[in-house]
Amino acid sequence: MTHTASVVGASGFTGGELVRLLSSHPEFEVTQATSREYANRTVGSVHPNLRALDLRFSEPDDLEPVDVLFAATPHGVSMAHVDGFREAADLVVDLSADFRLGSEEEYEKWYDGHDRPALLEESVYALPELHREELPGANLIAAGGCNATAAIVGLAPLFDAGVLDGSEHVVVDVKVGSSEGGAGGGNASSHPERSGVVRPYAPTGHRHEAEIEAEFGCSVSFSAHAVDMIRGAAATCHVFPDEPVGKSDLWGVYRESYEDEPFVRLVAGGSGVYRYPEPKAVAGTNDAEVGFEVDPRNERVVVFSAIDNMMKGSAGQAVHAANVALGFDERAGLDFQGLHPVGAP
Amino acid sequence: MTHTASVVGASGFTGGELVRLLSSHPEFEVTQATSREYANRTVGSVHPNLRALDLRFSEPDDLEPVDVLFAATPHGVSMAHVDGFREAADLVVDLSADFRLGSEEEYEKWYDGHDRPALLEESVYALPELHREELPGANLIAAGGCNATAAIVGLAPLFDAGVLDGSEHVVVDVKVGSSEGGAGGGNASSHPERSGVVRPYAPTGHRHEAEIEAEFGCSVSFSAHAVDMIRGAAATCHVFPDEPVGKSDLWGVYRESYEDEPFVRLVAGGSGVYRYPEPKAVAGTNDAEVGFEVDPRNERVVVFSAIDNMMKGSAGQAVHAANVALGFDERAGLDFQGLHPVGAP
Amino acid sequence: MTHTASVVGASGFTGGELVRLLSSHPEFEVTQATSREYANRTVGSVHPNLRALDLRFSEPDDLEPVDVLFAATPHGVSMAHVDGFREAADLVVDLSADFRLGSEEEYEKWYDGHDRPALLEESVYALPELHREELPGANLIAAGGCNATAAIVGLAPLFDAGVLDGSEHVVVDVKVGSSEGGAGGGNASSHPERSGVVRPYAPTGHRHEAEIEAEFGCSVSFSAHAVDMIRGAAATCHVFPDEPVGKSDLWGVYRESYEDEPFVRLVAGGSGVYRYPEPKAVAGTNDAEVGFEVDPRNERVVVFSAIDNMMKGSAGQAVHAANVALGFDERAGLDFQGLHPVGAP
Amino acid sequence: MTHTASVVGASGFTGGELVRLLSSHPEFEVTQATSREYANRTVGSVHPNLRALDLRFSEPDDLEPVDVLFAATPHGVSMAHVDGFREAADLVVDLSADFRLGSEEEYEKWYDGHDRPALLEESVYALPELHREELPGANLIAAGGCNATAAIVGLAPLFDAGVLDGSEHVVVDVKVGSSEGGAGGGNASSHPERSGVVRPYAPTGHRHEAEIEAEFGCSVSFSAHAVDMIRGAAATCHVFPDEPVGKSDLWGVYRESYEDEPFVRLVAGGSGVYRYPEPKAVAGTNDAEVGFEVDPRNERVVVFSAIDNMMKGSAGQAVHAANVALGFDERAGLDFQGLHPVGAP
Repeated sequence: MTHTASVVGASGFTGGELVRLLSSHPEFEVTQATSREYANRTVGSVHPNLRALDLRFSEPDDLEPVDVLFAATPHGVSMAHVDGFREAADLVVDLSADFRLGSEEEYEKWYDGHDRPALLEESVYALPELHREELPGANLIAAGGCNATAAIVGLAPLFDAGVLDGSEHVVVDVKVGSSEGGAGGGNASSHPERSGVVRPYAPTGHRHEAEIEAEFGCSVSFSAHAVDMIRGAAATCHVFPDEPVGKSDLWGVYRESYEDEPFVRLVAGGSGVYRYPEPKAVAGTNDAEVGFEVDPRNERVVVFSAIDNMMKGSAGQAVHAANVALGFDERAGLDFQGLHPVGAP
Repeated sequence: MTHTASVVGASGFTGGELVRLLSSHPEFEVTQATSREYANRTVGSVHPNLRALDLRFSEPDDLEPVDVLFAATPHGVSMAHVDGFREAADLVVDLSADFRLGSEEEYEKWYDGHDRPALLEESVYALPELHREELPGANLIAAGGCNATAAIVGLAPLFDAGVLDGSEHVVVDVKVGSSEGGAGGGNASSHPERSGVVRPYAPTGHRHEAEIEAEFGCSVSFSAHAVDMIRGAAATCHVFPDEPVGKSDLWGVYRESYEDEPFVRLVAGGSGVYRYPEPKAVAGTNDAEVGFEVDPRNERVVVFSAIDNMMKGSAGQAVHAANVALGFDERAGLDFQGLHPVGAP
Repeated sequence: MTHTASVVGASGFTGGELVRLLSSHPEFEVTQATSREYANRTVGSVHPNLRALDLRFSEPDDLEPVDVLFAATPHGVSMAHVDGFREAADLVVDLSADFRLGSEEEYEKWYDGHDRPALLEESVYALPELHREELPGANLIAAGGCNATAAIVGLAPLFDAGVLDGSEHVVVDVKVGSSEGGAGGGNASSHPERSGVVRPYAPTGHRHEAEIEAEFGCSVSFSAHAVDMIRGAAATCHVFPDEPVGKSDLWGVYRESYEDEPFVRLVAGGSGVYRYPEPKAVAGTNDAEVGFEVDPRNERVVVFSAIDNMMKGSAGQAVHAANVALGFDERAGLDFQGLHPVGAP
Repeated sequence: MTHTASVVGASGFTGGELVRLLSSHPEFEVTQATSREYANRTVGSVHPNLRALDLRFSEPDDLEPVDVLFAATPHGVSMAHVDGFREAADLVVDLSADFRLGSEEEYEKWYDGHDRPALLEESVYALPELHREELPGANLIAAGGCNATAAIVGLAPLFDAGVLDGSEHVVVDVKVGSSEGGAGGGNASSHPERSGVVRPYAPTGHRHEAEIEAEFGCSVSFSAHAVDMIRGAAATCHVFPDEPVGKSDLWGVYRESYEDEPFVRLVAGGSGVYRYPEPKAVAGTNDAEVGFEVDPRNERVVVFSAIDNMMKGSAGQAVHAANVALGFDERAGLDFQGLHPVGAP
């Protein structure tokens, strides 16, 4: 262990994932995990998978100096406390939406404005598949939103290869698990109400649309549905390229983008039970599965992508980005292979 | 009870639903339920909810004369046995795909051709919301496909009102339960593999596309996903009208189509946990929920619809159509209100 | 409709079930459904299955006179308001624990005492299979607890037939759904935490033990586990009769008790998928399934019973008891047959 | 990697777990994974979590020499092929029931006899918490049954400390996931039928009873229930000690047995959502959680234990035993911490 790390907001779901990942990461020692609500209690009292871990929550007001501070706080908290975070650590990796967009205008438009707009140019959007070059040397990294990550990973090769140029209709229909709502949700998140739903939420105007559009410079028609899983985000992107494209073309396009990526695998047809990207198959891992199919009758390409929203879509992406930023092996601390079989992930 | 009815293929899932509905229908007496595999065993030995019913499966080769024969057999069986069905009954209501499309050409294109093409003109597509006028006097009725029904019920008002004219991109992204695969599915349908999935299947070229296109005379981009429920089909339709349309316009359009429909209710926003159509809310019933939202940024309309695939999407639609055809109260035998709370339906 | 009925506490889960049952009951008209929190909103805004019902919640302080008042309020509320209830209605059916036990001493021991102990002798424990004779003419009826009902229905025939005399070890191991926790549960009931659990709760000293012991006059070792369903209570009773008993003896014992019962069916072995009592098979119904097996190696009898905790275990039992009390057909309003297949009920 | 290993029967669920564990184990290199059905296909085509693994199934008839052969074949196969296994490897670890019991008589009584009874004395029951001393030097190890392991881990301290002496009633009520049925189950295991059940199976005379009795030398009343999870076995043991015992006594008893065990943790009350052993909390790990409660009213002790049936209850136990047998770090290859939150495991 060569670096110290702290987790601010460690009693939440993604905070717990950060503690899990960092506590078994070969390069990190977790020296602090904060929670105002659970201060002085063991981390395992909230995250039962970590009951064996000898670590207690501490108050978020006394941040110890560390090499890397990971912030897993609700929207708005990081922008309010970012100066303290940066005082405590050389590198801040933020999991909230506070530093994902590039300008104050975008925060005016999609959120409620921004407290520290000067930092927006400095911050780097984490997703290493798209921003690997910008990460080394960064001192403020913003992990992407889960739904946005699922969509971006699926669509990026089409934009990179010019199959799409931004003028086409792009429909992104996402299915997500209940962990997206965070710990302690209200009545709508109670087990009797939430189980078994196919519930549209923010069917239009979802804030993650902004992140996708920021990457591709075009408008996307985004809708999300809550389905009966806990972890996982699966994006189905329906796109209509101007020029016809064949399946083997798509294989070429996606291999070009992803063949050397340590956390992306292509799954598009073939035999067996799992012929397309499947959230279950990546639950608990930092992997993204991406697949595609051509619909010649409708001049459509359908792209499927599946991630664990708390891993590739949040805490895993954060650790991956930190690995890249600090020059570690990219897979350090992220080598869990996932389970089979496994239930609603 | 004024009419006799039989169910051919009664050991399957939709066959069981037919027996359930007809056995408590005020106008029907179920005199025969056939199953080759389970002949002579009680209906309740296969369908545990019907354990109190005093009825045994009989061989399908000895059809008794009845007023109405409901066929819930796999694709291809009804077209092979339709003459026998019609000999046994004045009215045949078929739940398979065998008599849904209008011409032999369509069966060549989407299926493996047709044995009795002459009957295709005679058969009536059941969905009463669209075909109420054609049902009285029909003697061959084809209940619609579940996914197709979900999509058609959602989109029909937009076509009727001219919001769509068939030239636009229409994306239909469906989420369905495991009962669609029928009883006794293979490895992919086993509980450990099937639980918790968001599994694309027939992501392009799904046969229900043909039914939707037959109703609207235009091409639709259809993809289906298996999610973790047993009953239910939820369709999300993403459409791009040429002319801008507002939410209040849509309320007008949908009320115009559905305000007098006994089995359609509009759910579009408002307060509470269930703000949009939800399969859980209609599980076990013949109801369809339909809702919509406008996305001005993308000049998009999103339409949500939710049905129980075995009820409104199959057996319930069949009974509803028979009610209309025979002049019964439309809600006869279909007045179950559904449950709350309820799990994965 | 010959009688008026009101539901106090109608926004809760069992309150919603009461409204559902009574609104389609041939003898009842629901004239009032109260909810302090949701007053003036439609019943369907809380219970989505009842969206078509033309009924709004009213304040609980203005009770209209009715023939029967059903109270579905939390423990302690009914005993505080029972005089008002009785002023408003000739018959009060209470779904809480407030009038289930027979004496103030028991309430001191198991609860926090009782406000109106004089009424405890007057009140009748609803379960018609055991108390049918006491119900006609009653004016205060206490519907049994769900777990207690499951256990009592399973064990009663053994006590009635003298297979057990109360001196033996009786272990009752119950598995229940999340609806038992009621609407709006806290963090432990949130979907991410509650899904997929096998969670012991009140592993010893559960209050329903008191009800079971009141019926049989003996001590029972009761433990409950929350499992991943919404509706349902399944009791496994492990008992050790002093005298050896065979399976055919048990068939005799259970048939003697239940062969004429409209809501109990025996399921003990046989073929098919559902060979023993199964909560799924009775979800939404007022039925109880009861089965048993002999374990000669351990001189044990295992009894299985399954009910829908909100129906036979609460609202359904209440309506059933009212039917008996008022001389209606016992199955009036309770004839839903349940569904197959169906998910986590 | 210091040792070679092969997995026979690698396309099954526990076979897949073995490949997963061994392929990331610091001391093992997996050189062969056999499957008759899937020979020549990639391991990842069956186990989607292993899609990145460069390994193909080979025919089981050509076993390569290895240091350790792990057999994950159905009951009866290992006893038929054990000579070939032992020819191929110095150490054979068998996951089936074929070498768990101690004598031919027991196999006559509980199974269908035994082909190679001479080996029964030689084989060591894996569970390291009870048999750590016998494992070094063993060349035939039998991993315990999942349900038996859950029960044994829960009860062993009570027998060791003399709280139980074998003359008392011991009720073991187990709740298990669908992975116990293995891959490719039939109709009863299909998603629509299996979801949401509380299904008693082998309610008496379950074969795992034999294993539990072999450890403790007494009779246990065992019943298992299939509930809606994929992984996991939770045992609730209801026992009636002759002498009264208090909760602090039990803490002493269990700490004495388990305080140095790397894979057992005690969870008995306290605060938070997860106050007792919970299968979700150990899913994917080799950990066992054990807890207890005293019921003075009934002179009962209730013991709860929770494991992942495929890990601690099978493949994980096998690797743990091999680690002990070969002198590796006990936690080698078994350090995954599990996830939170996570769905039906």
